[in-house]
Amino acid sequence: MHAGYGDDLPITAFATTPGNSALTLIRCSGRGTVELAASCFSTAEKLLQAAGNTIVHGWIVNDNNKVDEVLVSVFRSPKSYTGEDSLDISCHGGPAAGKAVIDTLKSAGFREALPGEFTFRAFMNGKLDLTQCESVMELVCAKTEAGRRHAVKRLSGILSFEIEEIKKSLVQVLAGAEIYLDYSEDEISADTQEIAGRLPNKDIALEVLERLKKLYASWQIERLYQEGVTVVITGRPNAGKSSLFNSLLKEDRSIVTEIPGTTRDWIEAWVSVQGIPVRLVDTAGLRAAADSVEKIGVERSLKQLQEADIVLYLIDSTQGFTEEDLRFIAEQKTGQKLLLLWTKTDIAPPQTEVEFAADKTLKVSAKTGEGLALLYETIASVIGQASEHLMSETSVSLGTERQKNLTGTALSALEEVLAAEEREEPLDVIAPLLREAVNALGEITGEVSTADILEEMFSSFCVGK
Amino acid sequence: MHAGYGDDLPITAFATTPGNSALTLIRCSGRGTVELAASCFSTAEKLLQAAGNTIVHGWIVNDNNKVDEVLVSVFRSPKSYTGEDSLDISCHGGPAAGKAVIDTLKSAGFREALPGEFTFRAFMNGKLDLTQCESVMELVCAKTEAGRRHAVKRLSGILSFEIEEIKKSLVQVLAGAEIYLDYSEDEISADTQEIAGRLPNKDIALEVLERLKKLYASWQIERLYQEGVTVVITGRPNAGKSSLFNSLLKEDRSIVTEIPGTTRDWIEAWVSVQGIPVRLVDTAGLRAAADSVEKIGVERSLKQLQEADIVLYLIDSTQGFTEEDLRFIAEQKTGQKLLLLWTKTDIAPPQTEVEFAADKTLKVSAKTGEGLALLYETIASVIGQASEHLMSETSVSLGTERQKNLTGTALSALEEVLAAEEREEPLDVIAPLLREAVNALGEITGEVSTADILEEMFSSFCVGK
Repeated sequence: MHAGYGDDLPITAFATTPGNSALTLIRCSGRGTVELAASCFSTAEKLLQAAGNTIVHGWIVNDNNKVDEVLVSVFRSPKSYTGEDSLDISCHGGPAAGKAVIDTLKSAGFREALPGEFTFRAFMNGKLDLTQCESVMELVCAKTEAGRRHAVKRLSGILSFEIEEIKKSLVQVLAGAEIYLDYSEDEISADTQEIAGRLPNKDIALEVLERLKKLYASWQIERLYQEGVTVVITGRPNAGKSSLFNSLLKEDRSIVTEIPGTTRDWIEAWVSVQGIPVRLVDTAGLRAAADSVEKIGVERSLKQLQEADIVLYLIDSTQGFTEEDLRFIAEQKTGQKLLLLWTKTDIAPPQTEVEFAADKTLKVSAKTGEGLALLYETIASVIGQASEHLMSETSVSLGTERQKNLTGTALSALEEVLAAEEREEPLDVIAPLLREAVNALGEITGEVSTADILEEMFSSFCVGK
Repeated sequence: MHAGYGDDLPITAFATTPGNSALTLIRCSGRGTVELAASCFSTAEKLLQAAGNTIVHGWIVNDNNKVDEVLVSVFRSPKSYTGEDSLDISCHGGPAAGKAVIDTLKSAGFREALPGEFTFRAFMNGKLDLTQCESVMELVCAKTEAGRRHAVKRLSGILSFEIEEIKKSLVQVLAGAEIYLDYSEDEISADTQEIAGRLPNKDIALEVLERLKKLYASWQIERLYQEGVTVVITGRPNAGKSSLFNSLLKEDRSIVTEIPGTTRDWIEAWVSVQGIPVRLVDTAGLRAAADSVEKIGVERSLKQLQEADIVLYLIDSTQGFTEEDLRFIAEQKTGQKLLLLWTKTDIAPPQTEVEFAADKTLKVSAKTGEGLALLYETIASVIGQASEHLMSETSVSLGTERQKNLTGTALSALEEVLAAEEREEPLDVIAPLLREAVNALGEITGEVSTADILEEMFSSFCVGK
């Protein structure tokens, strides 16, 4: 395991991003945290004697120089986020104040926290299980209100509860199977051997199978809420890409002029479409590039296009459809949805007689706003098609790829169990498969875990969490 | 006065920038704050009964829906930043969680705080004087460690103390002058009239004059620490601007290619040169623009150039000096410092025989790093020349334009007093001038203030402060 994870030494990190905000929050945790912080605090005694869940006002000092005026929230083990003695230091905002405080803490003996180390300690000290730890990161990364709601549900333990319920049922099935394994072969009568070939509590196993399938399928939708959908706006130069991008964002973000090739690089912004985060990308114009700078722009546009879930291909109604358009549309990746948009329809009508292989053809005018509402609706319905149906608010869903993989392991093992049972294989073949499913579920909540897996998981967290 | 400033209604705002950080801090303050927050809190009773300076753990709830798990720091009037009942709510980081919490608070009845409204209330309730209020914003905006140290000194009251001392002395001079005004003309004997023409305690007035002059001069240096210096990198296309910019930043921030005109817009970054923040700007290449997009870039470059304190004008050693260079250099604004840099000196030597009207000529190679250290030193010494000398750590300095203007008013009034005294004018001419100086000093700390001035001052603060 990475040096650091697993020890209980005093650590510190920013819990908020130092910016031009009113305050910055710095976290400290670990053995001797209060004593160490007191060594660089104006009224050390007050801090040392502070009870848990109380706040002490004073100055962080460095060799008698005042560094910043702060409020220190004191948490005493085990009543803290990490379960250890911890402090939340609220200092002034701005890039300089927070840095000066954290530098002082580090010279007092605090080590910089590793990514996710506070949450790692919370897990190790039994304050949160693994699905809850993961939901903390999901919450921080939630891009839309819907995404936030889903993460909060998992943080409150709804997923852990569902996993526990499923596991309990599986353990019951496993126990039924293992009863027969406790008898040596000599002891099993012809009668019991007959039973031994059949799986006791098969009805429970079938019920678990359904619950696991539902849970496994939930990830497909949940990941839309987390990772979002990429919508790339493209087309030939001067097709109206930046104007459309700006209209969809309702703010002026890129230069809009009458000259082809203005957007040299791509720019992006996140918008929410029915709670699903949509990464809207405005690319440079597609054309055979004249110079090497132009080429960089076009190449980056093509790279963005590769990552698109939905492509908005724009055609200038005043220019009409060309060979070049056909060529670019033909290069489209399979699996992507294509929406053809006739732009500038306030100036010229679209060529309705032309037939394209698009999923949908629309006409829009960034100038008059014509067709924009319909475009948003169409994007929403295309996403809806992909996700089959949006998740109900009460259903339980998986929150991470890791959880999905382990649920998949449990599901496959159980499917094998039932196939083996169909083939009337003996219980000593079936029981290990059941155990595999139980273990996979235990790994989800962190009941069963290895140092390697934990490190990989927590090191993807942000620092300060 | 603006609707809002001056009332004590419950207000709320983000105190940290919601981003992909571990936590977000939300502030609440005003009459009924604790009761209002309790109406959307999972364990309302615990919150209602919480003593000041304690922390309550629970969930923000909206119609029984869990919004986020939070820690609430409770402050009871008058022991809080604002002097009112206040709460700091620490919720999960990320853009969605904080927004959901603040939306819940707003629907519970909190009003969104105006810029600087928390600090405004702190001032109105006598928790901070005006120079301390201003130092809070200076601290948040401090760009370098030196800037932070200066702001902290003012926050701790060192400037208020100096102003008070000066004012006390001036009041003493004023009192001396007014004694004679208390007599009616009839009562004044020939003897006292002689004295009346002379200013009593003139030695004190002269001493105050020196202190005010020193204080007034301190702003010239202090504002360098606050506003920084703008260094603009410019020259013809392909002169090596982006390469130099990147080398100075030691990171790859703009596209560097062999084709002229890559940096269409300007980009900027802040670096610290001997504690003074330097805004380093990389502009588009200067040239007669062919198309209108190119023109936009060149126009924006010229605008940046107008704002420069120091211009780094680059000339490609492999290309040599041209008419165009001469023309651009001739257009330079007066007052700006000009450093001519021969670039790409690893490929070709500079034309040392050419004489320019530059403040300094240097040769650099972004590729080999030659001349970069000397360039930094030169920038530092140019800034140093401008600021005459860097401020000593123990000296008192002004922190804002407002403080400088009022100090200037006091200084002018006192200079008039002494001039009038030279001309042997009567004390009833001199005394009002002394009173003007005293009032100006009172305005600095906020002892004397008007609603308009306060509103103007606090509305330039950030929200949440």
